[in-house]
Amino acid sequence: MADKDKEKTQQDASDNVAELKAKAGKEPIASFLDMKLVELSKGYAKVSAKLKPEYLNFNNLVFGGIVMAVADQAFAYGTNSVITPNVASQFNIHFVASADVKDELIAECRVVRAGRRVCISEMTVTNQDGKLIANATGTTIPLV
Amino acid sequence: MADKDKEKTQQDASDNVAELKAKAGKEPIASFLDMKLVELSKGYAKVSAKLKPEYLNFNNLVFGGIVMAVADQAFAYGTNSVITPNVASQFNIHFVASADVKDELIAECRVVRAGRRVCISEMTVTNQDGKLIANATGTTIPLV
Amino acid sequence: MADKDKEKTQQDASDNVAELKAKAGKEPIASFLDMKLVELSKGYAKVSAKLKPEYLNFNNLVFGGIVMAVADQAFAYGTNSVITPNVASQFNIHFVASADVKDELIAECRVVRAGRRVCISEMTVTNQDGKLIANATGTTIPLV
Amino acid sequence: MADKDKEKTQQDASDNVAELKAKAGKEPIASFLDMKLVELSKGYAKVSAKLKPEYLNFNNLVFGGIVMAVADQAFAYGTNSVITPNVASQFNIHFVASADVKDELIAECRVVRAGRRVCISEMTVTNQDGKLIANATGTTIPLV
Repeated sequence: MADKDKEKTQQDASDNVAELKAKAGKEPIASFLDMKLVELSKGYAKVSAKLKPEYLNFNNLVFGGIVMAVADQAFAYGTNSVITPNVASQFNIHFVASADVKDELIAECRVVRAGRRVCISEMTVTNQDGKLIANATGTTIPLV
Repeated sequence: MADKDKEKTQQDASDNVAELKAKAGKEPIASFLDMKLVELSKGYAKVSAKLKPEYLNFNNLVFGGIVMAVADQAFAYGTNSVITPNVASQFNIHFVASADVKDELIAECRVVRAGRRVCISEMTVTNQDGKLIANATGTTIPLV
Repeated sequence: MADKDKEKTQQDASDNVAELKAKAGKEPIASFLDMKLVELSKGYAKVSAKLKPEYLNFNNLVFGGIVMAVADQAFAYGTNSVITPNVASQFNIHFVASADVKDELIAECRVVRAGRRVCISEMTVTNQDGKLIANATGTTIPLV
Repeated sequence: MADKDKEKTQQDASDNVAELKAKAGKEPIASFLDMKLVELSKGYAKVSAKLKPEYLNFNNLVFGGIVMAVADQAFAYGTNSVITPNVASQFNIHFVASADVKDELIAECRVVRAGRRVCISEMTVTNQDGKLIANATGTTIPLV
């Protein structure tokens, strides 16, 4: 029964996907960080972002916050493809390997559980060669 | 004895603080995201960042990745004030309240445990009125 | 307005506190792990548990899962003191120092944000001397 | 070169696996929580634990701390199979579905990155039917 309710309160996911794809080219943060939505389906999103010298920190490494931001963008698209709006409440990331400033980061999000009250997702960030840079998990709360 | 070793392998923290302050004005990511180092002492850092319309996402909210980035910057300064280099391995954040695009974010980092092998820190992000936007914790690994 | 709604959908917290105190002596897991509810008020709980030789692992250290369990018990009481039932969705812990098998652990939970849809809490675990053993944060979802 | 060093400072993993298997039947916490080591190879561990009425909490649900403990046991074996001792510093879990008191939990750990200074692992907890109960990630610090 709870599952039936869930179905009812969710927007039709295929609508979400189409709507998000239309928005993807226009949002300010995507332009600012040059993040591209590469792929989107119900419960899955892939985002890419070319790194830049502007992202280097005081240790001359790519700033971790940029890796998080790219993962967060995939997280946002992946979770909103299931239910919209679906707002991030928590995000945990492990930095597995450092990124090179010449890398293009690829972030993927897979929604593991799409509940009516809470969604749980897994993210990975790799570079253009498939090297794992970070893995992450997160909690979102549907506002429907 | 382990503690004595720890002391020896750590750079003198007051040196770190002075060195980091000198670097703070020059690092690319700080310019790119307009983040200012407001305060720095051994085991504590405060960073501020004025939000901008460029940071809005497809739901017309401030992109969570920006909140994370500001927290991460305080995290980087706070942990490197104790031991340098001290590289982030893990970061967990809870989004407590949404930020307004007109807000100035204030991120603070307090190092809870400064070990030779691993450091643990706590971060908060508030706005200019002291409203809690996010709290976070993280793990760093000293490379000395 | 959202806040007004929140108030309405929550059970009266003082009722929760009294009810939880009454249940505290009777729940199976509390007996099994010898965990005592030491203090409870709206948004705050303190739990104690005496460690035992049964909790040692293959490295002859106190099993981390026991430290987590004691923190989780404070988390459960603290969050349910605000809204009941309030079910854990996520929990992140940092092990700051190892516990001694003769220690008595004290876990405290403070609810940082008590929302209608999601609650965020902070926990600490110390020993009988106030030494910090672990800090944790967590997400709960009210089922009201 | 760093990788060569890594190899040298690590104990031979096949030795670790044999040694851990020998210890697995004798550790106090495994007896106390009735956790069995089902499978172990370099970077992978599987643990099972039959749930019991003693694990119910005040909401008549299986106590989350028990789910964490079973995940933590797989985490300990998986990470120590690579490097011993390898001590948990951080652990993050998402509760995906509630467990039934009649369930047998199966926890698996996969080491994602086995570094000389820090290891990162992913865990899942399922029930006897393969239903996902929780997913987790964690950080360990080799003490070699």
